[in-house]
Amino acid sequence: MAFLDVLLGRRLASREDKEQRVNAVAGVAVFGLDGLGSAAYGPEAALTVLIPLGLAGLAFSLPILGLIVILLTIVFFSYRQTIAAYPTGAGSYTVAKENLGEHMSLLAAVALMVDYALNTAVGISSGVNALISGLPALQPYALWLCLGLLVLLTYINLRGIRESARVFLPPTALFVLTLGIVLVTGIVKIVLSGGHPEAVEAPPPAPGPAEQVNWWLLMRAFAAGCTAMTGVEAVSNGIQAFKEPVIDTARRSLALIVIILASLLLGIAFVLPFFHVVATEPGKPGYQSVLSMVTAAICGRGFLYYLTISAVLAVLSLSANTSFADFPRLCQRLAHDGFLPYAFGLRGRRLVFTQGICVLAVVTAGLLIFFNGVTDRLIPLFAVGAFGTFTLSQAGMVRHWLKNEKRSPLSACINGLGASATGAALLIIVAAKFSEGAWLVVIVLPCLYGLMLTIKRHSAHITRAIASAPLVHFKPSESPIAVVFVDRWDCVSQKALQTAYTLTSEVEVLQVEREGAGEPVQDWQEAARQSISNAKLPPPKLVLLKSPYREVVSLIVEHIWQLERENPSRLIAVVVPELVDHWYVSFLNNQRAAILKTFLLLKGDSRVLIITVPWYLEDRARKGSANREAWWEMFPARLDR
Amino acid sequence: MAFLDVLLGRRLASREDKEQRVNAVAGVAVFGLDGLGSAAYGPEAALTVLIPLGLAGLAFSLPILGLIVILLTIVFFSYRQTIAAYPTGAGSYTVAKENLGEHMSLLAAVALMVDYALNTAVGISSGVNALISGLPALQPYALWLCLGLLVLLTYINLRGIRESARVFLPPTALFVLTLGIVLVTGIVKIVLSGGHPEAVEAPPPAPGPAEQVNWWLLMRAFAAGCTAMTGVEAVSNGIQAFKEPVIDTARRSLALIVIILASLLLGIAFVLPFFHVVATEPGKPGYQSVLSMVTAAICGRGFLYYLTISAVLAVLSLSANTSFADFPRLCQRLAHDGFLPYAFGLRGRRLVFTQGICVLAVVTAGLLIFFNGVTDRLIPLFAVGAFGTFTLSQAGMVRHWLKNEKRSPLSACINGLGASATGAALLIIVAAKFSEGAWLVVIVLPCLYGLMLTIKRHSAHITRAIASAPLVHFKPSESPIAVVFVDRWDCVSQKALQTAYTLTSEVEVLQVEREGAGEPVQDWQEAARQSISNAKLPPPKLVLLKSPYREVVSLIVEHIWQLERENPSRLIAVVVPELVDHWYVSFLNNQRAAILKTFLLLKGDSRVLIITVPWYLEDRARKGSANREAWWEMFPARLDR
Repeated sequence: MAFLDVLLGRRLASREDKEQRVNAVAGVAVFGLDGLGSAAYGPEAALTVLIPLGLAGLAFSLPILGLIVILLTIVFFSYRQTIAAYPTGAGSYTVAKENLGEHMSLLAAVALMVDYALNTAVGISSGVNALISGLPALQPYALWLCLGLLVLLTYINLRGIRESARVFLPPTALFVLTLGIVLVTGIVKIVLSGGHPEAVEAPPPAPGPAEQVNWWLLMRAFAAGCTAMTGVEAVSNGIQAFKEPVIDTARRSLALIVIILASLLLGIAFVLPFFHVVATEPGKPGYQSVLSMVTAAICGRGFLYYLTISAVLAVLSLSANTSFADFPRLCQRLAHDGFLPYAFGLRGRRLVFTQGICVLAVVTAGLLIFFNGVTDRLIPLFAVGAFGTFTLSQAGMVRHWLKNEKRSPLSACINGLGASATGAALLIIVAAKFSEGAWLVVIVLPCLYGLMLTIKRHSAHITRAIASAPLVHFKPSESPIAVVFVDRWDCVSQKALQTAYTLTSEVEVLQVEREGAGEPVQDWQEAARQSISNAKLPPPKLVLLKSPYREVVSLIVEHIWQLERENPSRLIAVVVPELVDHWYVSFLNNQRAAILKTFLLLKGDSRVLIITVPWYLEDRARKGSANREAWWEMFPARLDR
Repeated sequence: MAFLDVLLGRRLASREDKEQRVNAVAGVAVFGLDGLGSAAYGPEAALTVLIPLGLAGLAFSLPILGLIVILLTIVFFSYRQTIAAYPTGAGSYTVAKENLGEHMSLLAAVALMVDYALNTAVGISSGVNALISGLPALQPYALWLCLGLLVLLTYINLRGIRESARVFLPPTALFVLTLGIVLVTGIVKIVLSGGHPEAVEAPPPAPGPAEQVNWWLLMRAFAAGCTAMTGVEAVSNGIQAFKEPVIDTARRSLALIVIILASLLLGIAFVLPFFHVVATEPGKPGYQSVLSMVTAAICGRGFLYYLTISAVLAVLSLSANTSFADFPRLCQRLAHDGFLPYAFGLRGRRLVFTQGICVLAVVTAGLLIFFNGVTDRLIPLFAVGAFGTFTLSQAGMVRHWLKNEKRSPLSACINGLGASATGAALLIIVAAKFSEGAWLVVIVLPCLYGLMLTIKRHSAHITRAIASAPLVHFKPSESPIAVVFVDRWDCVSQKALQTAYTLTSEVEVLQVEREGAGEPVQDWQEAARQSISNAKLPPPKLVLLKSPYREVVSLIVEHIWQLERENPSRLIAVVVPELVDHWYVSFLNNQRAAILKTFLLLKGDSRVLIITVPWYLEDRARKGSANREAWWEMFPARLDR
């Protein structure tokens, strides 16, 4: 078995696509990790804003998280509709494109791309940092651990979607199971104790109230809590990864994710006040995450505690996988619409969009290296992308319900409410986090937007230019004039000259006279001329170019341009003899043939053909065929498209 | 005037070579800076070893430096002979090649290359560090200053040898003049005072003797002082840079360098004891260079002091220029003999060996960055290279005098003495400095040696393979089978098909059926077929390849291999339609044509031709001709060879 087969798995045929698809449960592991992981940091984010209220703040945890769950439900039903409406991919890019036009859709796409890239970096680094806070000896290797995890995620995703589902399902299940057990235990204890349960380990005492309840604080808490909703859009981008019937499977998977997420959020919000768990200031001594305090309060610090916390950390660090599942699919849709280069739309050996996965890995590696593995400051930034996406998707659905023949003002109202709520949350997030780095997003988004628009214009221009020409009329035409550049009279140039005579009978031999090039004409003329005339072929025309400034390539090209001007109806076939060596030593040889070819291609003219006549070193030619099969095995699929 | 003309100067014709050559005095600035700069650190190095002897050590300064001057004289006369014997370049590489064989010559070349690269880095960083010790505010920018100086030196050398002579002559003259005035003043004062001159500024008092005089100490002092001789070999490598008559001019230039250097060395050695100047421990508080103490003792710290010290620093930091003058010439000789790639032998726009200059600049930049601008530890290392070179050159001359018809045992004895002395110094240097980094040289030298030997073997293999083939017999042969790969039926592929028919009448159209490629055959067949048959051309053979694994390139290549096997007497012309875009956006388009061409070239077969049919976007084709002239101006000369 070939090396690449072992590494990446055997090649998958296009018709095996159906077998690679995932069912609803596996979909949770592939597309849901980001969404479920939000349960760990969403409530925490809201409670942190409420710290100044002290214990009084706990009264607002259920209303705020309840509101978020209602918003989540609206978003869920909205995505259910979009999945049915756009079964090839119902992400906000598609919805915005169908309903709000190209520019809005591009904005949604750009926001989502930034969101995914940031999410990958943040997920990986938060997982590694949590591991390090447990094992401080690993501190010096933080960046290497991040990059190692990134390589692992990239590798698993390159092996195909089924493989990633298989790898990520166990930690996902463990996360849901352990957190569920903890919350159910908590609720049971509350009920049994008549509303006054005793904490196994009491949380740190809440600080006294430092502020009065006010609307701005509650709104900020709501906006912060909204990060609990990030990742919910993932399924809608990846519908085509689900088993047939895709719409039903995708909807079931989305429903599973939303139901689990909503249950966890409501469960956490419900138990918090009874166990008097108030958030602690992050970054200050004595900081503990809310989930850690809740788990310790309900079950104590036993085996279950460590299992739960481990599962939370695993899901957090693997939440980057959602980006790996969705980013390449988004890129494929953008490539399909001309916003990204063609290669993003090609599926690799394992039926995944290799190019997108690799670009995401490279961008993430760049972010991790630039921030040296500490990406906390990026967390508010990816909420910007997520909520921009939600808002545009909801707004698109409003338009959808109003313009559609089955007009549905009620649905439009619900989506309008969702759009307003997510839009308001977006504004609050941007306002609150602007100085902390949200301005970066404000710079990056328009740049990406402009870049992709330029790519689209360019590719549209090319498509127009290629397609608009009238059908060529074939006619028997004159044979071309062949030009052969001969530097030395060796077998490489002999073969080129002979090849030129098989294509046309009008052959010009070009030589350049310059320092260090030996006597150019004399040494081959006699012998070859005799052989040519014996074969009853017309003799070649000899052209000797003088090169006072030692240039070669530009002289040849100038001569070819002149020849082309003098023969306005003929093709000029430039025959380039090329000695082919092993690629790893080719830098040792003269690169003139390659430079000449590149130059003729870039600055040539439409009547100039470039004919490469390769000459292989004897020993290679013989063993060439035997090596060929082995070569295919190592040939990267990306280049074979 | 074009940008490159302003930046680098106008192109120089090969016949302008004579006008670019330098006279004997300018030769001192081009090839002598390294040698003259040695006067600054050679005596210092010897005296530093003698510190443990206290004031008693001063008695040995004149004998030791006198011995070194005698050695220098032997080396001088030896190089005078080699210059006459090998007027195209008399460096130790050539001498060793002619007299000691290929392996010894390669060893000499490798030692010299390492010497030059280290010398450049050390020269630049010592100049910058001296500047910084005067202006400590520049400390944080040390590396940037080093790199800036490197860029400046590279730039001046790329502008040609006359330019570098013009730039470097003033500091050289200032160095010789000021140091000469100081030493002459010192001698006059000694004579006038009857051998008991009074120091204007007394040097720091010498420490008491810590050691007895012993042979090992004196030998080490001698070996250390021998660094005063580094750089003397430079002229012999660059003979062809001198004005006609080259032998006389080069000899005069070498004589000038050696006479100035010997005078400075003897002058310094002579005045030291009278002014009681003993070296201070480098790196310890109160350190002062010997030259600084001597100048202050003779003239005080006035204007002349600062002028002298500035000139010394300038020559030290510009001593890197000797490497820039010689390294590329050595590379050219090595390329000529096949030890380095062909490109090292090509002269650029200003008649200098561009490739060698650029490689030296890159290697030096690497060293400076790796050592962060502090290259003190490299100083002993380049003495290894220099003395290896001396020894091999002297040994070669011994052989030369013995084998030559004008046998001269006396000359052989003198060179033998020189070889023994330089060889002994080399051994002492390696032994004394092994743990300080000389082991690095011991690793690097064999690696470079092996690399260059491999290159030589490879290029010899290719030359043999190309030349040995018998003359081809031309015969009227069958026209080739053309294969055109058509992905979409647009003007790019239309043009390719039409071109195929001008080369041969047997055309095969290849299509690949795969996901996302549309209906491959239907859409063009009707229209084109009619046009082809109207033109009384034979219809193309349609071949449809199925691609279950989405591969394209490998399928096409496999098909071409098969076609070639089935037609053992025919050429297969693979016609590749290629859409040509501006180079800076070409990554947006499909690279399949380029990949296919590369693949066919590397793994193709000798009966497969690659025919590129470029298709230009309409607007480019029109303005193409107008832009061409401007293009040449920007075309790097390196690529035009």
